[in-house]
Amino acid sequence: MSLIVQKFGGSSVANAERVMNVASIVTDTYAKGNDVVVVVSAQGDTTDDLIEKANEINPRASKREKDMLLAAGEQISISLLAMAIEKMGFPVVSLLGWQAGFQTTAAHTSARIKNIDTLRISREIDKKNIVVVAGFQGITKFGDITTLGRGGSDTSAVAIAAAMHADLCQIYTDVEGVYTADPRKVENATKLPEISYDEMLELATLGAQVLNNRSVEMAKKYNIELEVLSSMTKAPGTIVKEKTKMEKMLISGVAKDTDVARISVTGIPDLPGLAFKMFSKLSAKDINIDIILQSIGHDGKKDISFTVPKSRGNEAVECLTDYMTNLGAKEVLYDDKVAKISIVGAGMESHAGVATKMFEALYDAQVNIQMISTSEIKVSVLIDTVDADKAVKAIHSKFFD
Amino acid sequence: MSLIVQKFGGSSVANAERVMNVASIVTDTYAKGNDVVVVVSAQGDTTDDLIEKANEINPRASKREKDMLLAAGEQISISLLAMAIEKMGFPVVSLLGWQAGFQTTAAHTSARIKNIDTLRISREIDKKNIVVVAGFQGITKFGDITTLGRGGSDTSAVAIAAAMHADLCQIYTDVEGVYTADPRKVENATKLPEISYDEMLELATLGAQVLNNRSVEMAKKYNIELEVLSSMTKAPGTIVKEKTKMEKMLISGVAKDTDVARISVTGIPDLPGLAFKMFSKLSAKDINIDIILQSIGHDGKKDISFTVPKSRGNEAVECLTDYMTNLGAKEVLYDDKVAKISIVGAGMESHAGVATKMFEALYDAQVNIQMISTSEIKVSVLIDTVDADKAVKAIHSKFFD
Repeated sequence: MSLIVQKFGGSSVANAERVMNVASIVTDTYAKGNDVVVVVSAQGDTTDDLIEKANEINPRASKREKDMLLAAGEQISISLLAMAIEKMGFPVVSLLGWQAGFQTTAAHTSARIKNIDTLRISREIDKKNIVVVAGFQGITKFGDITTLGRGGSDTSAVAIAAAMHADLCQIYTDVEGVYTADPRKVENATKLPEISYDEMLELATLGAQVLNNRSVEMAKKYNIELEVLSSMTKAPGTIVKEKTKMEKMLISGVAKDTDVARISVTGIPDLPGLAFKMFSKLSAKDINIDIILQSIGHDGKKDISFTVPKSRGNEAVECLTDYMTNLGAKEVLYDDKVAKISIVGAGMESHAGVATKMFEALYDAQVNIQMISTSEIKVSVLIDTVDADKAVKAIHSKFFD
Repeated sequence: MSLIVQKFGGSSVANAERVMNVASIVTDTYAKGNDVVVVVSAQGDTTDDLIEKANEINPRASKREKDMLLAAGEQISISLLAMAIEKMGFPVVSLLGWQAGFQTTAAHTSARIKNIDTLRISREIDKKNIVVVAGFQGITKFGDITTLGRGGSDTSAVAIAAAMHADLCQIYTDVEGVYTADPRKVENATKLPEISYDEMLELATLGAQVLNNRSVEMAKKYNIELEVLSSMTKAPGTIVKEKTKMEKMLISGVAKDTDVARISVTGIPDLPGLAFKMFSKLSAKDINIDIILQSIGHDGKKDISFTVPKSRGNEAVECLTDYMTNLGAKEVLYDDKVAKISIVGAGMESHAGVATKMFEALYDAQVNIQMISTSEIKVSVLIDTVDADKAVKAIHSKFFD
């Protein structure tokens, strides 16, 4: 008998039929003799509906009240799923984040889990109940409701799995697992039976939005075996774990990220500390920067280019324009017609020439590379967004065909 | 400076515009230097929408999960109202039932408040926050969410007023106060400036659904002054208190209740205890009986007629048919084409002839009386439902014109 944590996203419980489908997956697992803890997100569009209601009244509402509002979403989905499980004749209890013991920081709308007090969940499992837990939410030490931010339910699931020493944490999504490339775009994309935490982390960062990054980090930290699989099919998914058996595989996937923009600051005086000050400005606004390219200085001036999430692009440009021109820089340029294409694979650590092979594929496809960034297990390039799909196909076929 | 509790029902917060309207009433009160605790119901149709969602999945869901689901309704309305108050620039915090300290029995869907731990509310008031509290809900000692049943938000408001020793508890509804008769039906109906708890209790019981009965009982017990008024107009409402200054007023109102059915059990053997056993059967099913009429026995047989709420009529008939015929009764008759018309007034205690005056009005209007019931401060008659409005007008004009 194992303890299995199963997590279902908003689209998996979007309507009555899908809630019944999830109930049948859960009760099948329970009927095989397992203890089951289920983590659920809010139903399909509930979160968006609630945000719309709030915006009608006060688009600048406090984050505390936003959390209070949004947390109602999972309250609805957990009780409906519990009712579906009751209908199938199984013992069940639903628990809100605070009832399930999720203690978080007070950073409303993007709180972090500090601790899970598992007393209540354990007691319910001892009573042989299936336990349905509201993902995405917790409580501060002051007794206020918090939410964990985007993808928070994945993190909730992994955190429970870690706290309860679960044998497996299954993340049900609307895809069948992790693929070598986006299967909707690349014909020969294949599902990976296994992938390492590090590879998954790089893929998540790089725009393959299968799993939330924080959840993979946490799984790695506590060595929780994850399985990514579909709630719509019965196919086996992809296992995410520390070491995979796939050493021969050079790369595990090709990812495309179009939520990226390039900012170039030109004519920066070549003085020490200016780059640091510039990036501090952005970091103070919590804007993540990614690929950075600095030109070799000439005439005492240099250019620095870097990428930011497209959604934060205007803010980053505004923040830098006044500051940098005051310091003597020429101009701040902005381009959001770019895409980041990356290959990821633990195999490349021990294999030379992986980057070269990628560049060759891009050259063959006549794709111009604007910027390059590498780590031990990934190579990323920034290219024109119109070339993005062509580039993914060319690289995928170079490595996998 | 006073502490004022204000309660707003679901129709008062049904959409963004109405939420803003409520926010302006609340902030006006606060701006005058009062401490304000606001109790809110779920928005307009939210509760019905949630019940529909549940019924799609499992119409026989457990009461615990129903409570979990329904409590999401007030969570949405309190956060939206708090956001509206924030927009007007006032300090505010919303609290769920459990955060506001509502400890209840474990009778899910119809829990009773056992105690309110006012620590959190008091702390927020000390911080000069307007406190918005979710009505209708609480928590058991096991940490499970409960709801108080129909009209529960009125009870929540009065309970907070009692626990916090509030100076006034204002119940905002969609009517301007308590009237001498239904103003939509009786032209000369006038709003009462004051009414006593006992009169209000009789009126509530008798179908003038302005205030929930449990809330009036609690207000009487703790001597909380209530004001019933409209959230749509600025008119003063009706004050509900222990003693009114209106001794001269013979009766305070005429009420009509059409949610009533008459059951007659005929040919009951005239043996001791049979009536008791019959009513025990109904009481075991929690069916309230009201006016009772027992015929004088003849030939060792008697008839007993009584009224029940129309919604429980079929159940009552089913429950009695088998049982009574086994005991030798002839038949169980049922009539739901009846209405109960009542006059209520503390003044009738010290004035003779009030009932006579009512019967005279009915005789003048050619309305046949089927059953009569009286208490110290009310007289009720059961009549044919087609005569109901005519009867109310005739009685109202006899006493008030």
